[in-house]
Amino acid sequence: MPQLNCTDFLNISELLSEEEIEVQRMARDFTEKEILPIITKHTRESTFPKELFPKMGALGFLGATLPQEYGCAGLNNVAYGLLMQELERGDSSMRSAASVQGGLVMYPIYAYGSEEQKKKWLPLLASGKKIGCFGLTEPDFGSNPAGMLSRAKKKNSHSTNSGWILNGTKMWITNGTIADVAVVWAKNEAGKINGFLVEKGMKGFSAPEMKGKFSLRASVTSELVLEEVEVPEENRLPKAEGLKAPLGCLSQARYGIAWGSLGLAMACYEAAVEYSKTRIQFDKPIGGFQLTQKKLAEMLTEITKGQLLALQLGRLKDAKKITPPQISMGKMNNCAIARKVSHVAREILGANGILDDYPVIRHMMNIESVYTYEGTHDIHTLILGEEITGIAAYK
Amino acid sequence: MPQLNCTDFLNISELLSEEEIEVQRMARDFTEKEILPIITKHTRESTFPKELFPKMGALGFLGATLPQEYGCAGLNNVAYGLLMQELERGDSSMRSAASVQGGLVMYPIYAYGSEEQKKKWLPLLASGKKIGCFGLTEPDFGSNPAGMLSRAKKKNSHSTNSGWILNGTKMWITNGTIADVAVVWAKNEAGKINGFLVEKGMKGFSAPEMKGKFSLRASVTSELVLEEVEVPEENRLPKAEGLKAPLGCLSQARYGIAWGSLGLAMACYEAAVEYSKTRIQFDKPIGGFQLTQKKLAEMLTEITKGQLLALQLGRLKDAKKITPPQISMGKMNNCAIARKVSHVAREILGANGILDDYPVIRHMMNIESVYTYEGTHDIHTLILGEEITGIAAYK
Amino acid sequence: MPQLNCTDFLNISELLSEEEIEVQRMARDFTEKEILPIITKHTRESTFPKELFPKMGALGFLGATLPQEYGCAGLNNVAYGLLMQELERGDSSMRSAASVQGGLVMYPIYAYGSEEQKKKWLPLLASGKKIGCFGLTEPDFGSNPAGMLSRAKKKNSHSTNSGWILNGTKMWITNGTIADVAVVWAKNEAGKINGFLVEKGMKGFSAPEMKGKFSLRASVTSELVLEEVEVPEENRLPKAEGLKAPLGCLSQARYGIAWGSLGLAMACYEAAVEYSKTRIQFDKPIGGFQLTQKKLAEMLTEITKGQLLALQLGRLKDAKKITPPQISMGKMNNCAIARKVSHVAREILGANGILDDYPVIRHMMNIESVYTYEGTHDIHTLILGEEITGIAAYK
Amino acid sequence: MPQLNCTDFLNISELLSEEEIEVQRMARDFTEKEILPIITKHTRESTFPKELFPKMGALGFLGATLPQEYGCAGLNNVAYGLLMQELERGDSSMRSAASVQGGLVMYPIYAYGSEEQKKKWLPLLASGKKIGCFGLTEPDFGSNPAGMLSRAKKKNSHSTNSGWILNGTKMWITNGTIADVAVVWAKNEAGKINGFLVEKGMKGFSAPEMKGKFSLRASVTSELVLEEVEVPEENRLPKAEGLKAPLGCLSQARYGIAWGSLGLAMACYEAAVEYSKTRIQFDKPIGGFQLTQKKLAEMLTEITKGQLLALQLGRLKDAKKITPPQISMGKMNNCAIARKVSHVAREILGANGILDDYPVIRHMMNIESVYTYEGTHDIHTLILGEEITGIAAYK
Repeated sequence: MPQLNCTDFLNISELLSEEEIEVQRMARDFTEKEILPIITKHTRESTFPKELFPKMGALGFLGATLPQEYGCAGLNNVAYGLLMQELERGDSSMRSAASVQGGLVMYPIYAYGSEEQKKKWLPLLASGKKIGCFGLTEPDFGSNPAGMLSRAKKKNSHSTNSGWILNGTKMWITNGTIADVAVVWAKNEAGKINGFLVEKGMKGFSAPEMKGKFSLRASVTSELVLEEVEVPEENRLPKAEGLKAPLGCLSQARYGIAWGSLGLAMACYEAAVEYSKTRIQFDKPIGGFQLTQKKLAEMLTEITKGQLLALQLGRLKDAKKITPPQISMGKMNNCAIARKVSHVAREILGANGILDDYPVIRHMMNIESVYTYEGTHDIHTLILGEEITGIAAYK
Repeated sequence: MPQLNCTDFLNISELLSEEEIEVQRMARDFTEKEILPIITKHTRESTFPKELFPKMGALGFLGATLPQEYGCAGLNNVAYGLLMQELERGDSSMRSAASVQGGLVMYPIYAYGSEEQKKKWLPLLASGKKIGCFGLTEPDFGSNPAGMLSRAKKKNSHSTNSGWILNGTKMWITNGTIADVAVVWAKNEAGKINGFLVEKGMKGFSAPEMKGKFSLRASVTSELVLEEVEVPEENRLPKAEGLKAPLGCLSQARYGIAWGSLGLAMACYEAAVEYSKTRIQFDKPIGGFQLTQKKLAEMLTEITKGQLLALQLGRLKDAKKITPPQISMGKMNNCAIARKVSHVAREILGANGILDDYPVIRHMMNIESVYTYEGTHDIHTLILGEEITGIAAYK
Repeated sequence: MPQLNCTDFLNISELLSEEEIEVQRMARDFTEKEILPIITKHTRESTFPKELFPKMGALGFLGATLPQEYGCAGLNNVAYGLLMQELERGDSSMRSAASVQGGLVMYPIYAYGSEEQKKKWLPLLASGKKIGCFGLTEPDFGSNPAGMLSRAKKKNSHSTNSGWILNGTKMWITNGTIADVAVVWAKNEAGKINGFLVEKGMKGFSAPEMKGKFSLRASVTSELVLEEVEVPEENRLPKAEGLKAPLGCLSQARYGIAWGSLGLAMACYEAAVEYSKTRIQFDKPIGGFQLTQKKLAEMLTEITKGQLLALQLGRLKDAKKITPPQISMGKMNNCAIARKVSHVAREILGANGILDDYPVIRHMMNIESVYTYEGTHDIHTLILGEEITGIAAYK
Repeated sequence: MPQLNCTDFLNISELLSEEEIEVQRMARDFTEKEILPIITKHTRESTFPKELFPKMGALGFLGATLPQEYGCAGLNNVAYGLLMQELERGDSSMRSAASVQGGLVMYPIYAYGSEEQKKKWLPLLASGKKIGCFGLTEPDFGSNPAGMLSRAKKKNSHSTNSGWILNGTKMWITNGTIADVAVVWAKNEAGKINGFLVEKGMKGFSAPEMKGKFSLRASVTSELVLEEVEVPEENRLPKAEGLKAPLGCLSQARYGIAWGSLGLAMACYEAAVEYSKTRIQFDKPIGGFQLTQKKLAEMLTEITKGQLLALQLGRLKDAKKITPPQISMGKMNNCAIARKVSHVAREILGANGILDDYPVIRHMMNIESVYTYEGTHDIHTLILGEEITGIAAYK
């Protein structure tokens, strides 16, 4: 099978299976045919191309690692990573949408939900007919979710099956406003974190969109407001207990970001290479100048290492040997190099680099969110620091 | 006189005269009262607050270093620098507008124009009643203006006073679309660069706005299209000869940017300090964490050095001892540190850093233009390299 | 088989074969038992532990990838890389000695030599009974060997088998003074580069040691002076033609450095981790401070990526698919990160970091040579730049 | 008066008084005539050129800011800074020797001593006839001197004038072994830090030299061992109370380092410029390549900003307005840029950069000490961080 035409300086694609490459190809096609033609307009107007959701569903892009019995593609983690990479080569907004749906909504239902919950929600979410969102972060608790103020109170404290009253505010919720179901995390009266499936239209639940973003503009970002929302017991995720449950979701999402950010970096690098070969100054292509070559060589080196890192993480994840600090390294490094690559690509494009005729400025704005969400760079630094030294230094 | 309340870690304001501080204060007031309240809206909607032009004129902000006999403020270069700093603390778009009007339109009329041209144009431009733009850069000649394709042909080659026919295309022209007069540079038949005052409405002259910018969104950026435009001889700048003339203008503009970019950096730094003192995570202000303190300390150090650099450049300019490579160092360094500061400030603001509720993301986008225009970072690097080694390495 | 106790954050050792790990283990033992106990003294006194040469030979460390029929170990390239890594974990001087012997002396004899030359020299060099050196670089031709001034003239231009007269000066020659045989490159009268085996004691050949090094102090670095040296035709490498031949040797050496520099980085990182866990300041281990954790996390991330890079290069080399620019990326990146890691480790060790009680300062000095030789960082940058853009920018 | 021929890109020397330039010139001459001819040998052999001490004394270089009534030069702080700069342009060892003698021995005697102590010691130390050292740092208390274990016990607790018994160990003491007098800091029984003049030969006091340094090799670094040393009351500094006293000394020393490190950076930069203009590769001086010009331009920019920073600190110090965090910025920044400059200069010198034929490798090793002592980079970062945020983050 011929390789895809993309940045692959060390023949890494030869380490992939045919199936993995096939997934990459499908996602590449989707990005080129569905995302790229419309993304500039959506970014300019700050709107989300909601119509792509069922299309992604039809291709198996949503919850792609979950089993086929729930309507999912059952991919391995490397194929899933390549999928995230190719979507984010298009735009971080679309990759984020798929990440949230799969890693933060479908995954917790799959991992912590009852069989009924799985059967009800997973096929709907997998198909893209329903959209989900993930409510963990609060206005004053970004890096420290354990401090959350949202509360879940038993409606009738004497009945084990009486339902719950939820109160709280969540922020920075991708797809919140358009979601049919929100996985909301709140502390019960014992101070233990529980997860709830809060459905659109439940009384007291609203999800206003946040405005004025200059990053992920083609994504919907929302607040979730819960005021005395009644949620039946059957909407509680029965196997989620304590902070470990949402952190498990974050591991899924972070893993996907380690790959997705590579796609962003590759898109920027490829735009810069193309530009540097065709843009003439002082009678030669700017790619022929030493200062430009240094930039390109460094970009390629960082991307290549990021690819090797993501692939090894995928192999470890498929072998069920991966640890959260290993994922932190991937998320931290690949976001950081993607951020750097986007800035350098912007430089190479000169004045053209500020126009949305080229994808670079859009990616450069997007990476700021990606660099920050699902654990900031600094938080992942400290996760690694703790792993190395045995000493926690967060506080 | 009490100091202004701003970033001044090394008491640099004590090196300023009362008059210089007074100019700074006026510009600060203008920024706070006129720019900051409206700039978020203009940036969101990508519109230029044209109504601020006559207000800047009334305050003497336009062409501020030129003599009072032409309606200008006659400031020294340090006061002018502080003015640029304070405007850009508001937004690079407004500083750019003032820079172009003063350094790239009024300055060449003053330096290379006839007495009639000065008397006609300088008071109008100083008052902000008329707006000017500067047409040097061409689509394929950014860093290498000497290669320009625009041509000025004598209308009647036998008469010395017969007027000219201009043809060519200019790009990346700040205020082009709204300008009443454009200083356009073109090569005559002998291959010498000449400057012309091309007026709005001249036949064959148009200035379409460029769309899709994600930087300097509150600024108008345009193409200038000249198709057989007839320009009378009295609209030619008689004392401008060769590339030296537009390069002299660029020196004015670059000097202003060395100060302006500091204002941008200070705005970002101050927002980050404020945020770091009030944003609580893990039960303390994030400013209390070592990783945040490192960021803040580095930002402050770079800003402080940039201030000293700008001030020394100003003193050298006032003493008429300044050289173009010295200005290059100022432009290059202060844009680079402002760019870095804006990124780090964005990090410190966490997720809030992507919202236009805070000024940082706007400045972060703006600096990309400022870093690039009037000589990219790399071009200034090579100007310095040539000064150090005596060897030109542009080609 | 249990893993070795070393920096392996992503379980990369699980990607190694048993044989590869066994080679690593042997080399690790050698380093710990033979190199580390004596290296501080040799570094302090600037002497070379020549007695280790036959010991390395006995263990198969010299020319280790060449076939067993010539007395060599016949290792694959990954095992060879691990060997270089473990030796340089000890000291760059010993890795350099092994690199030169294997990659720059035995390899060209093997690749470009006659069967007689191979049979004569390879077993002697493999055993460490004889020492070789590689004479390519000249005082004025470091990065540009094609410009070499050394000349080989036919003794009798009418006889094809009459022997040669060599003249020239080589510099920066590892092991030059103690070598029994030097592979010397010189241009013939047609301007083509040829390789010659110049033996110790040949008339007109001398190899004075260079003094005053503060890097690779436990290594001998020499000049080679050739004044009318007569070399018989049978000492010419018959299959070496043009610059391609010595560049082929450099590819071998650069590949080994990509691994060796990792060993240096790992030694520094491990010293820093150990120190950070035991050094108490302000009543806690300095490894518990955020600023230290950031340093450690970055070091580990860079080392891990360097390991993945080296391993993939090894797999490509074993598959005979590797290209020179791919090797350049490995040499360039891994030396750069080792250099950075050594500096940061030095910081973490505080004042103790300047003492040779700890290995870090020694490695920090050594990496300066390793960063520079076999192609400087900048040369490899431009090799990559040419690969990316198709345009050579060396000149 | 003609300017000195040195790196002064922004005509900063025009901001100096004639007297200041005269001091700079004297120090420059001393460095060129006395230090540079012998420093390579001393560095190679790890010996201290003790004979330069009285020569420095004769020129007024020791305790140069103290009043003439005590035999000192009475210089202002800018002249003193220039002196430190020029000495360190020679070698950090000599600047360190002068710094310690003036800032850490003579200054505390002057600031905290009795009139008798001043009259006895200052003229002897100013002349270089006696050598002093400063004993604050302990093996386990580098960054946190408040934790010191050294103890001073009243010999007879009922008499106010009975003398003291000192016990403790100090480390990293410049000039310890050769000092005639040591300013030793120890806690009294109330836990308050006191300063004592411990004289050579006092029973129980020894100062063994530390070996194996690869930094400041031309300097003596020692331990101080105090075992039941009896020190009379008249050897106690009467006005030194608490940690404030030794910290006051550190401010003196740090200020001098802010200037001295600039001298080191200038020496490296100038060597690199010279080399880049004369070293030919690919048929042109390497200074003509873009990659080299980038390095040179960045070095010059950082040095220039460091000069402005040091000068402004000097002016603030002369005006008695300087604060410890301002000094921290100078020490931190100028050491960091000197370190970076030394590495880049080493790169530019290629292989020659590892030889002591050129000064760069020596400076590169020296700066590691200078970067670390008198407050590491990280400690100064946190001092600034505390100043900015109001929150101490050391612990």
